[in-house]
Amino acid sequence: MGTDFRIRPLADRVVVKPVEREEKTKGGIYLPDTASKERPMEGTVLAVGEGRIDDNGKRIPMNVKAGDRVIFAKYSGTEFKIDDVEYLILSEKDILGIIQE
Amino acid sequence: MGTDFRIRPLADRVVVKPVEREEKTKGGIYLPDTASKERPMEGTVLAVGEGRIDDNGKRIPMNVKAGDRVIFAKYSGTEFKIDDVEYLILSEKDILGIIQE
Amino acid sequence: MGTDFRIRPLADRVVVKPVEREEKTKGGIYLPDTASKERPMEGTVLAVGEGRIDDNGKRIPMNVKAGDRVIFAKYSGTEFKIDDVEYLILSEKDILGIIQE
Amino acid sequence: MGTDFRIRPLADRVVVKPVEREEKTKGGIYLPDTASKERPMEGTVLAVGEGRIDDNGKRIPMNVKAGDRVIFAKYSGTEFKIDDVEYLILSEKDILGIIQE
Amino acid sequence: MGTDFRIRPLADRVVVKPVEREEKTKGGIYLPDTASKERPMEGTVLAVGEGRIDDNGKRIPMNVKAGDRVIFAKYSGTEFKIDDVEYLILSEKDILGIIQE
Amino acid sequence: MGTDFRIRPLADRVVVKPVEREEKTKGGIYLPDTASKERPMEGTVLAVGEGRIDDNGKRIPMNVKAGDRVIFAKYSGTEFKIDDVEYLILSEKDILGIIQE
Amino acid sequence: MGTDFRIRPLADRVVVKPVEREEKTKGGIYLPDTASKERPMEGTVLAVGEGRIDDNGKRIPMNVKAGDRVIFAKYSGTEFKIDDVEYLILSEKDILGIIQE
Repeated sequence: MGTDFRIRPLADRVVVKPVEREEKTKGGIYLPDTASKERPMEGTVLAVGEGRIDDNGKRIPMNVKAGDRVIFAKYSGTEFKIDDVEYLILSEKDILGIIQE
Repeated sequence: MGTDFRIRPLADRVVVKPVEREEKTKGGIYLPDTASKERPMEGTVLAVGEGRIDDNGKRIPMNVKAGDRVIFAKYSGTEFKIDDVEYLILSEKDILGIIQE
Repeated sequence: MGTDFRIRPLADRVVVKPVEREEKTKGGIYLPDTASKERPMEGTVLAVGEGRIDDNGKRIPMNVKAGDRVIFAKYSGTEFKIDDVEYLILSEKDILGIIQE
Repeated sequence: MGTDFRIRPLADRVVVKPVEREEKTKGGIYLPDTASKERPMEGTVLAVGEGRIDDNGKRIPMNVKAGDRVIFAKYSGTEFKIDDVEYLILSEKDILGIIQE
Repeated sequence: MGTDFRIRPLADRVVVKPVEREEKTKGGIYLPDTASKERPMEGTVLAVGEGRIDDNGKRIPMNVKAGDRVIFAKYSGTEFKIDDVEYLILSEKDILGIIQE
Repeated sequence: MGTDFRIRPLADRVVVKPVEREEKTKGGIYLPDTASKERPMEGTVLAVGEGRIDDNGKRIPMNVKAGDRVIFAKYSGTEFKIDDVEYLILSEKDILGIIQE
Repeated sequence: MGTDFRIRPLADRVVVKPVEREEKTKGGIYLPDTASKERPMEGTVLAVGEGRIDDNGKRIPMNVKAGDRVIFAKYSGTEFKIDDVEYLILSEKDILGIIQE
C-alpha cells in the first residue's frame, strides 16, 4: 500500500478507506451509536498530504502514513467513490488515533 | 492551458472549471449525494492567485497550478459565467486534493 | 481614472463603482442568481486604501489599483451615493479577482 | 477644532459628531437605506485615541485625526450626549474612509 | 482615592464606581437609551489590574488609573456590592474613553 | 492551607471552595442577582495549576495562589464534590479579582 | 499500566478508561448532575499522544501520563469500545485536573 493512490491530498488532508462494519466486529473494536457523543469510525490511510504550513511558513510533518489503521470522528471529512469503492478525504486533525496491530 | 484566463484570482484564490456529470462517470469517480456529508466536486484549475500573505508578511506559494484536475467541497466558492460557460472561483483551502492521471 | 476620488478609503478598503447589468451582458460575463452560491458582482476600482497593518506592524501592499476591473462577492461592502451615482466601499479581501482586458 | 474635546478616547477609538441629514444632502453624498447593505453615516472626527497595541506591544498609529470628515458603518459605536449635542464613540476600524474636501 | 480598594482586579480588569443618574445630569453628559445603540455609562475608576500579558509574555501597561472618570459600555462587566454600595468590575477594553475635567 | 489538595489542576486552572451565602453577608460583600449582569461569586483558592503555555512555548505564571480569597463569574467552571463538600475548578481568566483582607 | 494500549492517540489526545459510578462513590468524589454546570467525570489515563505542535513548530509536552487518575468535562471526547470495554479519547485541554492519591 503506497502513495500512488489516484487522489493526492493537499496540505494536512488524508485519504482513508473506511472499514466495513463486518471487519470492525472481527477486530474487537466496537463503536457505539451514542446520542451525546460523536461516534468514531475505523479506516485505513491510503494517501497523505505534505502537511500544512504553520504561521512561520514552515511545513508541519504529518503524523500518519499510508497503511496506518486509524480511528476518526464519524462526521468529519468528505466522501467520494472511485469505481464504486467509497473513500473519505479528511484533515489529519480529525484523526483521533492510530490502531497498533 | 495557461495562466492567461480572463480572470486573475487574488491571494490564494483559484478559478476552476467544474466537470460535467457525464465526464465524471467516465472517469470512474462518483460523488454520492449524502445528507450527512459534504459532497465534493471535480474540476480543472484554469488560473491561480499568487498566494496569501502569512502573519510575517511572506507570500505562501500555491499548491495547485493551472491544468491540475482537482476535487473540492461542493458548496465552496462563487459561481460565474463567461460566454455561457460556468466557472467557479474558490480559495485553495477548499481544494481537497489533486487527481493524478 | 486616478486616486483623486472624493472618498479616500482607510486600511485595506477599496471604493468600487459597480457595473450596470446591461454592461455586464455586453462584456460576456454573466453572474447567475443561484440559491446555493454567493453571486459575484463586477465593478471598477476608483480608490484604494494604503493597506492594512499586519501583526508585526508592517503595512501589507494592496493587490488592486484604481482603474482595475474586478469581481467581488455580492453582499460584501457598504453602499453610498454621491450626486446620485452609486458606489461601494469594501475590503480588498472581498475582491475575488481582477478581470484582464 | 483640536484634541481638547471633553472625552479622550482610549486605544483606537474615535469621537465623531454625526452630520445632520440636511447637511448631507447639500454635500452631495446620499446614503440609501438598503435592506441588504449596511448604511454608512457621515461625521466629523473630534478626538482620537493613541492607537491600539499590536501583538508585539507596539502602538499602531491612527489614520484619522481631529477635523477629518469621515464615513462610517451606521450601527457601529456608542452614542452619548453632552449639553444636548449627540456624539458617537467608535473604533477606527469602523471608519470606512475619509472624505476629501 | 488610591489603589487600596478592597478588591484587587486581575490582568486588565478595572473596578469602577458607577455615577448616579443625578450626578450625570449635573455634569452635562446625558446618555440616551437608544434601541439601536449600546448605551454608555459614566463612573470613577477605583482600582486597576497590572495589565494583561501579550502573546510574547510581556505585560501591557494600563491606560486608566485610580481616580479617572470614564465612560464604558452599559452591559459590560460584573456588578457587586460592598456595604450596600454598588461597584462594577470590567475589562479595560470595555472602557470607551476618559472624561477630561 | 497548602497545595496538597487532592486534585491538582492542569494548566491555568484553579480549584476554589465557594463561600457560603452566610459568610458573604458577614464579609460585607453582597452579590446581587441582576438579570442584565453576570453575578459574581466569592471563594477561596485551594490549588492552582502551573500556568498555561503561551504561543512561544513559555509558561505564563499564575496570578493567584492557594489561600487567596477571590471573586469569579458565577457560571464559570465545573462543580464537583469530595466527601460531600462542594468545589469548583475553573480557569484563572474567569477570576475577576482578589479580595484584600 | 503502560503505553502499549491498542490505540496510540495523535497530537494532544489522551485515551481514558472512565471510572464506574460505584468506584467513584468509594473514592469519595461525587460529581453532581447540576443543570447550570458541566458535570465532570473521573477516569484513568491509558495512553497519551506526543503533544500538539505550537505556532513555532515546537511540540508541547503533555502534562498527563499513562496511569494518571484524572477528572474531565463530561461531554468532551469520543467514546469507543474494545472487547466490550468502553474507552474515551479526548484532548488534554479537556482534562481539568489530576487526582493525587
